[in-house]
Amino acid sequence: MIHWPVPEPEIPAGTHPALAAVARAAVAAFRDARGRFDRTQLAEKVDMGADGTPTTRLDQLVDTAVAETVDAHRVNLISEEIGVIDNGSAVTLVVDPVDGTSNAVAGVPFSAFAGVVAVDGEAVESLTTWLDTGRSWHAKAGETLPYRTTGRRELDGAAVSLLRPHPKSEDAWLRVSRRAGRVRVLSSSCLEAALVAEGSLDAFADPGSDTHRIMDIAAAAVLLPAAGGALIDAYGRPVEIDPDLSRRWSGIAAATPDLAEELAEEINRPSS
Amino acid sequence: MIHWPVPEPEIPAGTHPALAAVARAAVAAFRDARGRFDRTQLAEKVDMGADGTPTTRLDQLVDTAVAETVDAHRVNLISEEIGVIDNGSAVTLVVDPVDGTSNAVAGVPFSAFAGVVAVDGEAVESLTTWLDTGRSWHAKAGETLPYRTTGRRELDGAAVSLLRPHPKSEDAWLRVSRRAGRVRVLSSSCLEAALVAEGSLDAFADPGSDTHRIMDIAAAAVLLPAAGGALIDAYGRPVEIDPDLSRRWSGIAAATPDLAEELAEEINRPSS
Repeated sequence: MIHWPVPEPEIPAGTHPALAAVARAAVAAFRDARGRFDRTQLAEKVDMGADGTPTTRLDQLVDTAVAETVDAHRVNLISEEIGVIDNGSAVTLVVDPVDGTSNAVAGVPFSAFAGVVAVDGEAVESLTTWLDTGRSWHAKAGETLPYRTTGRRELDGAAVSLLRPHPKSEDAWLRVSRRAGRVRVLSSSCLEAALVAEGSLDAFADPGSDTHRIMDIAAAAVLLPAAGGALIDAYGRPVEIDPDLSRRWSGIAAATPDLAEELAEEINRPSS
Repeated sequence: MIHWPVPEPEIPAGTHPALAAVARAAVAAFRDARGRFDRTQLAEKVDMGADGTPTTRLDQLVDTAVAETVDAHRVNLISEEIGVIDNGSAVTLVVDPVDGTSNAVAGVPFSAFAGVVAVDGEAVESLTTWLDTGRSWHAKAGETLPYRTTGRRELDGAAVSLLRPHPKSEDAWLRVSRRAGRVRVLSSSCLEAALVAEGSLDAFADPGSDTHRIMDIAAAAVLLPAAGGALIDAYGRPVEIDPDLSRRWSGIAAATPDLAEELAEEINRPSS
């Protein structure tokens, strides 16, 4: 069993009621699952998710709690495992109930709830909650935050977090890591993006493996611009909220648009 | 400024009084430094450490608090920045006041206090405290712990945390990462070793860059065996408590001695 506590989330006043309720439900379900199941049971593949990847027991329990809360609030949902729930609302929540699932089931204390409020398809608000501590990052599109990114523009010497190297992205991974002053692999994209937003990392990137689904980067797409940064796709594709869960991106969250573009350029450079 | 709180450390009853006092002093100094200085000021190189690497303002403040406490308890100290303090005691504390300094000064929430009690040169007790949450791991040599490692013996498919790739270790880094099922770079060796001890990671390694000093691996050398795991050097050198701070190791903390040896073998394999 993972014996560490799961604290209450620190959800700021002014958070959309449905988003706040879903975050609380996700944290409660996460805590309950940790209390009832050991690491092996949490990690057990119990189903196939709507996004085409296997669903762990932990994912299933937390996603179910999210879906019930969404139904109670009569809003729509786009979620990793459950897929799409259409309650006929103009409001859709785009939710990653457990971002960093492999950390969460193993006990590596770095996993998150992340959710976005979209109105008529437009992302207007985001909430990212670090499940292991309750720390939260909340943003509304068009409003500035009390914290900022580092403002860094150059990749050389930057503090960069990356997805682990994948066979198809290993060359780009190495090129970025050689130029970076610091390299991290924390394996929770939503938390890594939050660390970029608050100025603890200069950038986070999937260096071209097209691992990201919309729920992995939707919160960052609201949070980063509000903190002076940027969230782009390495291959220039628009980051759109779309119920088609087969779509993938290689997200880049960076302290500035310049740094995001420099990372994209390095990721796109042909291997020598 | 990094605005997150630094909680009180959870130090178990039975911890050596000098070690407990030093841990509390380190956490208090860390909290104070975070409250007074911003990221740039915390990271400023203010001196050259006894280990030959630059000392940040954060390191200096926390090390000074550690040295004062050691003097008050009339024990000896081996520490990264201060070096060696000989108070003529049979007890020496081997301390890394801030493990993961680059995380700590940037605000990435993975840094630790780590300390070991050595009696007549033999490590007998360790304490690792995650500065960002207060979580602590305490062990005494020859006593078993209430938690265990994963017990994993094979590298293929294992969850492995690594130091970032360095030019001299890049080939080994890639070979290990290709065989691992999960790869992390958390950049706090003491915390990564604690995660191996509690069964959240299968292994942590410096894949051959000889970055570790004794204070980076001394706590793991007590903690890992007490949890059923192992702490070895990739090149087979004994991990000894030695006031010569120019010595370096490539530490491997693993769930089992077999896994540690398999990692060492892969790190030592000639590049193809």
